[in-house]
Amino acid sequence: MDQFSNGDIFVGEIIGTAILILLGAGVCAAVNLRFSKAKDADWIVVAFGWGFGVMAGAYTAGTLSGGHLNPAVTLGIAIAEGDNWGKVPVYLAGQMIGAVIGATLCWVAYRAQFEANRDKDNASPTLGIFSTAPEIRKPVDNLLTEVVATFVLVLPLLSFGETKSLGPGATGTGTLLVAFLVVGIGLSLGGPTGYAINPARDLGPRIAHALLPIPNKGTSDWGYAWIPVAGPLIGGALGALVYELAF
Amino acid sequence: MDQFSNGDIFVGEIIGTAILILLGAGVCAAVNLRFSKAKDADWIVVAFGWGFGVMAGAYTAGTLSGGHLNPAVTLGIAIAEGDNWGKVPVYLAGQMIGAVIGATLCWVAYRAQFEANRDKDNASPTLGIFSTAPEIRKPVDNLLTEVVATFVLVLPLLSFGETKSLGPGATGTGTLLVAFLVVGIGLSLGGPTGYAINPARDLGPRIAHALLPIPNKGTSDWGYAWIPVAGPLIGGALGALVYELAF
Amino acid sequence: MDQFSNGDIFVGEIIGTAILILLGAGVCAAVNLRFSKAKDADWIVVAFGWGFGVMAGAYTAGTLSGGHLNPAVTLGIAIAEGDNWGKVPVYLAGQMIGAVIGATLCWVAYRAQFEANRDKDNASPTLGIFSTAPEIRKPVDNLLTEVVATFVLVLPLLSFGETKSLGPGATGTGTLLVAFLVVGIGLSLGGPTGYAINPARDLGPRIAHALLPIPNKGTSDWGYAWIPVAGPLIGGALGALVYELAF
Amino acid sequence: MDQFSNGDIFVGEIIGTAILILLGAGVCAAVNLRFSKAKDADWIVVAFGWGFGVMAGAYTAGTLSGGHLNPAVTLGIAIAEGDNWGKVPVYLAGQMIGAVIGATLCWVAYRAQFEANRDKDNASPTLGIFSTAPEIRKPVDNLLTEVVATFVLVLPLLSFGETKSLGPGATGTGTLLVAFLVVGIGLSLGGPTGYAINPARDLGPRIAHALLPIPNKGTSDWGYAWIPVAGPLIGGALGALVYELAF
Repeated sequence: MDQFSNGDIFVGEIIGTAILILLGAGVCAAVNLRFSKAKDADWIVVAFGWGFGVMAGAYTAGTLSGGHLNPAVTLGIAIAEGDNWGKVPVYLAGQMIGAVIGATLCWVAYRAQFEANRDKDNASPTLGIFSTAPEIRKPVDNLLTEVVATFVLVLPLLSFGETKSLGPGATGTGTLLVAFLVVGIGLSLGGPTGYAINPARDLGPRIAHALLPIPNKGTSDWGYAWIPVAGPLIGGALGALVYELAF
Repeated sequence: MDQFSNGDIFVGEIIGTAILILLGAGVCAAVNLRFSKAKDADWIVVAFGWGFGVMAGAYTAGTLSGGHLNPAVTLGIAIAEGDNWGKVPVYLAGQMIGAVIGATLCWVAYRAQFEANRDKDNASPTLGIFSTAPEIRKPVDNLLTEVVATFVLVLPLLSFGETKSLGPGATGTGTLLVAFLVVGIGLSLGGPTGYAINPARDLGPRIAHALLPIPNKGTSDWGYAWIPVAGPLIGGALGALVYELAF
Repeated sequence: MDQFSNGDIFVGEIIGTAILILLGAGVCAAVNLRFSKAKDADWIVVAFGWGFGVMAGAYTAGTLSGGHLNPAVTLGIAIAEGDNWGKVPVYLAGQMIGAVIGATLCWVAYRAQFEANRDKDNASPTLGIFSTAPEIRKPVDNLLTEVVATFVLVLPLLSFGETKSLGPGATGTGTLLVAFLVVGIGLSLGGPTGYAINPARDLGPRIAHALLPIPNKGTSDWGYAWIPVAGPLIGGALGALVYELAF
Repeated sequence: MDQFSNGDIFVGEIIGTAILILLGAGVCAAVNLRFSKAKDADWIVVAFGWGFGVMAGAYTAGTLSGGHLNPAVTLGIAIAEGDNWGKVPVYLAGQMIGAVIGATLCWVAYRAQFEANRDKDNASPTLGIFSTAPEIRKPVDNLLTEVVATFVLVLPLLSFGETKSLGPGATGTGTLLVAFLVVGIGLSLGGPTGYAINPARDLGPRIAHALLPIPNKGTSDWGYAWIPVAGPLIGGALGALVYELAF
């Protein structure tokens, strides 16, 4: 992270994470809201929507901040690099602000659909567009799912850096591979909890959900909110530790 | 745009945009028309159909014109480069002509299917194959959707240019990433309006729809036509301005 | 084609086309035959199955023959290069032999499923696994569909060669783009006729269908067989001519 | 294989194969288990889930072991290289251990879903998440399917190595192409047997299935277990022999 200035990091993470969440929350809106052309589309749509959101956000931010867009990734990189802890708060601040902005832009893009929720009897559930929720609510199991899913994001992400032919940092081919990996994690490990694998991705939009004037939006489910924060941080740290041991 | 001659720009944009619209309108025909093997296919089909249309058209035109294929992209690049405004009309002319040609080629490819619409009771709606239409008709909301969706096309597209390892202009890996980004925008933000994100993509085929002898084709819905022109131009300009501020 | 020996061309085209047809016919078997795990899968499956067949076959044959795998591509390249017509028959021979071998390997892989067709009342149609058939049988329209679909294969394929950053011939990134283009053509223009866009792809497997001992296999529909031969050759030639004019 | 130390091979294959199986078994869990957000998703989900598992595992292990992750690939490379047989057992040991670990991590990620199988009347079948099973049980046909499907994995994989522009070993673009090839094989040839195409991919998770405390898990079907071991080894050897003949 040393090569980036604090200002560039802050701006890059805001823009990159906003793009990620706009497209990621967007695809959840697309398949869940009534009056959307993609209503009830296949799970492949959700996974590629998030993956291409990572791709777009990370390459956009690449030359400014390295395009982390994810506190679990920032934590993993900080552990693997072993210094630069001073820049971690700048990354986290940018990521959280960007996530709230991205979720708000998604609400703008789907405003007519959210307004259609005024018809209470046919209101679509909206929290799932912003934040994750488990299919079976069991905190320990849900936490483990997020730990495993984020572990298998951060360990490969760090390992790709070993492969010089993938190019430098977030500006080489490795970033496209990370985007495809996020598609893969979504396809494979998104079933139980909806794969937060990123504290900012869950917490930022949850704050937006709480603040935005969406009719019949229901609860923001704060009781669950710690799991998609703690799980990814634990998984990211474990991924970095295994990376340290193996390479 | 300086490195391309007016003649090459004109030819390149005609060919590239024709390819884009042939494949893009084609996939809408494929999933909407009766007697098509892809009838009622999943939304993923639409998004990848348009995305690979961008890929094919942009790389084909890459060495001739840079492969914009989209007035909103041309506007964004002109703002970001700050000069070359004289070439903008050449781009726009090529894009509009190419779009009409591409839509006409799509009609040729699906001629038997369009003819089957003579059976009035079973006629498929055809305007949606050529142009976009909103699920909920609210001009301000529809405009905002197109603004946001085009913003998140043009800002990353310009930013990818910062990343030297993606290669030069429309001939490097960056163009494939833009194609994937268009897939992502379709998956995530196509729900409310069908994501024009390109004035030529909507207006050119709408003109073709008005002119072509399609049985039971219905109205060309000119009342909506200004939104997929104005929205993308605003979104593209905003994307270029944020790019200017951030980089 | 000059850089390849006749022997390498022959071997390369046999192997590459066999791989293409094994995976392409395979995906049609996968979605059509009873007792297949992919029965009735979405159209996206068919398009990516053929596209990754192109990718696998073309890169495998790349250093031997340039990986044409398609008489329409060979014709287009011969027109664009303007010489080397003497090698065209070697390409065509390899492509036809490879296509028959690939279709036979597909039959081996799905032998139990084809045998299940002995249950006459529940027999799946099998010709569509080997060869294309139109949804609406109108020779002129069907021919035009194949002309347009192959035109939009060969023109971009030749144009990609202009882009030096995509690398040399069938061994650079351009071949992956061609594979994605074939996915795109399938998604967008496969609806009316099932997109042969390759005379060998249709004629070789049709011969295999006529020869293989498949229970209740029905007719090989030779009356239609000329269209997926003539259409792609015309489309490929037109693509090469437009390429010559534009570049 | 000469360039890698035994220690690196062992560690690399454990990690890489664990990632492959975690994501591969994961996607089977995602589409098969009740209370999964991806329940009953399209076949495209399964194929891309496994393919991106290959991508993630192979690039992660690339600089340590070359990222084989598959005894059939190791066998094919050993035949093609003609020496280095002494390292084969190290590869196989790492692959088997990694496969068991990966399957166990998948069980951890889906623990709540597996526990829901205590409801015996609504228990999902679980063996198919871990190991392959044929749609029609005919040993000779099932074996042939695995032979053909692995042949068309190993022959292209070795051929890609001829193409220098794809970069060196498991660290260049060739590995992404192999991942797409695995997607293609899944789409096209996965129908009859579920495409093991990798002895470790089937045997390791089958052992995990036998050992893990999953309620109502049913038999581990050891009678079928030899086919997804023998078929891929035969197919991989044949692929290497054809490669030797052709190149």
